[in-house]
Amino acid sequence: MVRTMEWKEGTLVLLDQTRLPAEVTWISCTTAERVREAIARLEVRGAPAIGAAAAFAMVLGWRGILREQSRAGKGKEPPASPSESYLPAFAALKERLDSARPTAINLAWATKRLYDAAARLAAGGETAKAVSYALETLAKRMYDQDIAVNKAMGQYGAACVPDDAVILTHCNAGALATCGWGTALGVIRSAAAAGKVRQVYADETRPLLQGARLTVWELLEDGIPVTAITDNMAAWVMKQKGVNFVVTGADRIVRNGDTANKIGTYGVALLAKAHGIPFYVAAPASTFDFRLETGAEIPIEERDGDEVRRFLGHLATPPEALVFSPAFDVTPATLITGIITEYGVLRPPYPESIQALQARILKEEKDSWKA
Amino acid sequence: MVRTMEWKEGTLVLLDQTRLPAEVTWISCTTAERVREAIARLEVRGAPAIGAAAAFAMVLGWRGILREQSRAGKGKEPPASPSESYLPAFAALKERLDSARPTAINLAWATKRLYDAAARLAAGGETAKAVSYALETLAKRMYDQDIAVNKAMGQYGAACVPDDAVILTHCNAGALATCGWGTALGVIRSAAAAGKVRQVYADETRPLLQGARLTVWELLEDGIPVTAITDNMAAWVMKQKGVNFVVTGADRIVRNGDTANKIGTYGVALLAKAHGIPFYVAAPASTFDFRLETGAEIPIEERDGDEVRRFLGHLATPPEALVFSPAFDVTPATLITGIITEYGVLRPPYPESIQALQARILKEEKDSWKA
Repeated sequence: MVRTMEWKEGTLVLLDQTRLPAEVTWISCTTAERVREAIARLEVRGAPAIGAAAAFAMVLGWRGILREQSRAGKGKEPPASPSESYLPAFAALKERLDSARPTAINLAWATKRLYDAAARLAAGGETAKAVSYALETLAKRMYDQDIAVNKAMGQYGAACVPDDAVILTHCNAGALATCGWGTALGVIRSAAAAGKVRQVYADETRPLLQGARLTVWELLEDGIPVTAITDNMAAWVMKQKGVNFVVTGADRIVRNGDTANKIGTYGVALLAKAHGIPFYVAAPASTFDFRLETGAEIPIEERDGDEVRRFLGHLATPPEALVFSPAFDVTPATLITGIITEYGVLRPPYPESIQALQARILKEEKDSWKA
Repeated sequence: MVRTMEWKEGTLVLLDQTRLPAEVTWISCTTAERVREAIARLEVRGAPAIGAAAAFAMVLGWRGILREQSRAGKGKEPPASPSESYLPAFAALKERLDSARPTAINLAWATKRLYDAAARLAAGGETAKAVSYALETLAKRMYDQDIAVNKAMGQYGAACVPDDAVILTHCNAGALATCGWGTALGVIRSAAAAGKVRQVYADETRPLLQGARLTVWELLEDGIPVTAITDNMAAWVMKQKGVNFVVTGADRIVRNGDTANKIGTYGVALLAKAHGIPFYVAAPASTFDFRLETGAEIPIEERDGDEVRRFLGHLATPPEALVFSPAFDVTPATLITGIITEYGVLRPPYPESIQALQARILKEEKDSWKA
């Protein structure tokens, strides 16, 4: 299975997803800023993968702060303690990383975990070097956990997939969007392993073609039957091809179940409803934003209009055309049949099931501190 | 206003719509076969424009048949009479033209008018040359009528457009899809002239981008405010931007009101319904197929998968990807608020209003024969 990133002795090596499937090239990031750039440019994309990359960026960032302080201190070794003096710069770094893409909550979720860990250790009097080591260990654990989380989602999700399934998915919520296996594609992979998948239809997902380029590529590699369609064919395919299951990933889910995901997801959910097809979202617990009540509060990233004006760099509209380019939309909870997480499948009423999920996560966190 | 075609002393000059808006180039067709090729390649496209081009192709075809017979007769002049001997070859030519694109009924409607005229004149003992002249006159009249028909539709349609309209349209049903003014864009042009249009959103319309390339270009030229969006943004734009009117063209409308149009139209109609937005179709009477009862009987053209695999020639999917590429879909009559024709706006129940339209057209035809 394809790997989206690798941590190699202090360098984060990222698969450049903007060049797939034409070229398989890698980007070596030795600074937090280069990782931020990769996130902003979508060289690494997909909410869980962004989270993992951001965790490693925080590790690189902490080291960068130490190096700078060392230079400022005229070549002297960084002070062995305390490390608290580095926290303001680390907080600023977190802010800078979080601003790379505003919608996917996994980004801020990951940077917060790293920041909180550093703050806790610093408060406990740990040296900057010890913090550095601890952050690296945490980021690596988060990376490993993401794969385990996806496998768990895959199992829960596969149970929701009907036999002889004809599945439609939008964008890429696959191995490439995560550290491996995938969220929506993880569900499809697990269902295929159980012999349940007859056919997958992949929306190409304009403007950046994550469906055509990445989902089709992943499923071809895995030998799962996949057919590419343009986004505007989804309704007709649902009607003519017997689609009986729709699953997508998510970039942010709020307390009432409203879900931000790649632009077009809202339309797909409406079309699924019109055809009586179950519509599932697959997303790890890190995708939930327990601070927000409804989807109206989710910030929606608008991207450069040239992404719509062009296609793989080639002009589609007159160059002076005005465009609207929201990267995400919000699917109201009422259109979502179930939300597949690593803790099981959440069902309506979502305010209750999501509150129960939050309680369970908080309890686990407390237990882990005690341990 | 842009011209899609011009008849110049026996040559049909077509604007090459596959190269717009990057290049404005013209194709000179001196044979019916070259016009057929232009229709199949979408160098000329849009149901009414295809009809007009096919009418001129029949004129070129009749002349070609005369030339061939003349060659077969060793350089002798074509017989002055009777012209009936040319009819079998002319019927074969009609079949060949009709097969260029199976969905738009205007193609077969136009070739039938030319064939029927030739057959009537031949039966009356007219010479082949006289028939040739009559066919040219008829094709030119059909061309002129198309513009008048579009203007009439524009007037009827504009009355349906609300004040301060935010309009969404799909594909290109503009001047470029007709002989001038346009069907859906004709309605928008007439509404804009009446000061009713605040904003138009144009779906880019993959795979061949008639929206991004042609609709945006036409509206920019006319100074009507237009914003390009990808097809998968339509639902979000309807919700966020206050869309209050949707209008598209049509390639074939059957007795119960079911309507074939560019792939994606069915989805747009479902999304309009979900948002409570009126959904109108604008199409001349020549788009109606009074022989078919329901949309299930309409043949849907499937095009080369490379049109989906590629975008302006550039590969979007892995080259070995399977694709599904229907060029059209069928919007059920239940989703259509009104059908704007040159005879007025048809309303549900469509079986009745379409039957009344048919009766009116038949009466007009009879009256014109008497005249």
